[in-house]
Amino acid sequence: AQAAEEQFGVSNQQVNILGESLTATQQQVQQLQESYSELVNANKIFVDEIIHLQKLVRAQNQVHNELINH
Amino acid sequence: AQAAEEQFGVSNQQVNILGESLTATQQQVQQLQESYSELVNANKIFVDEIIHLQKLVRAQNQVHNELINH
Amino acid sequence: AQAAEEQFGVSNQQVNILGESLTATQQQVQQLQESYSELVNANKIFVDEIIHLQKLVRAQNQVHNELINH
Repeated sequence: AQAAEEQFGVSNQQVNILGESLTATQQQVQQLQESYSELVNANKIFVDEIIHLQKLVRAQNQVHNELINH
Repeated sequence: AQAAEEQFGVSNQQVNILGESLTATQQQVQQLQESYSELVNANKIFVDEIIHLQKLVRAQNQVHNELINH
Repeated sequence: AQAAEEQFGVSNQQVNILGESLTATQQQVQQLQESYSELVNANKIFVDEIIHLQKLVRAQNQVHNELINH
């Protein structure tokens, strides 16, 4: 009986603590998924801005060429 | 008794493995939170640099207008 | 016996549900780690593009100085 209790003596408290700890972990994961989505949205804005800057700089290069050849 | 053992025969080993697995998962989540903070910091630098580039390009456009009207 | 059952009456079903929930959480964490790696790769491209734009804008400033002093 002693051995059986050692082997199978899992208390509700132990399992409840595990369950609460897992719930807390899942909330952190959920929060990270939302934070990740925000970063993905920020990255889309970066891509747009960088492409816009590339176009402006390319257009300015053309102005330079025209000014130099003028 | 057989049925009771099947239903309640949860071993300490099972619960210990779950607990260790949960601890490892929590460490991964902690690591991801730190990595996320680094990305947020990098994004702040990107925003600053992009705004700086926009100002420079806008200033150059003004130089162009003055050179063309000269 | 009643008290013992209340304290140690952990069912296999309870522990199985915890185990499945933990497995699902681990898959979400794994997915987040992959998503994080993609963001890190995107950031490397942003850094390269921003540095490239900085060089172009600096070169254009020199052209301006030469045009103005001409």
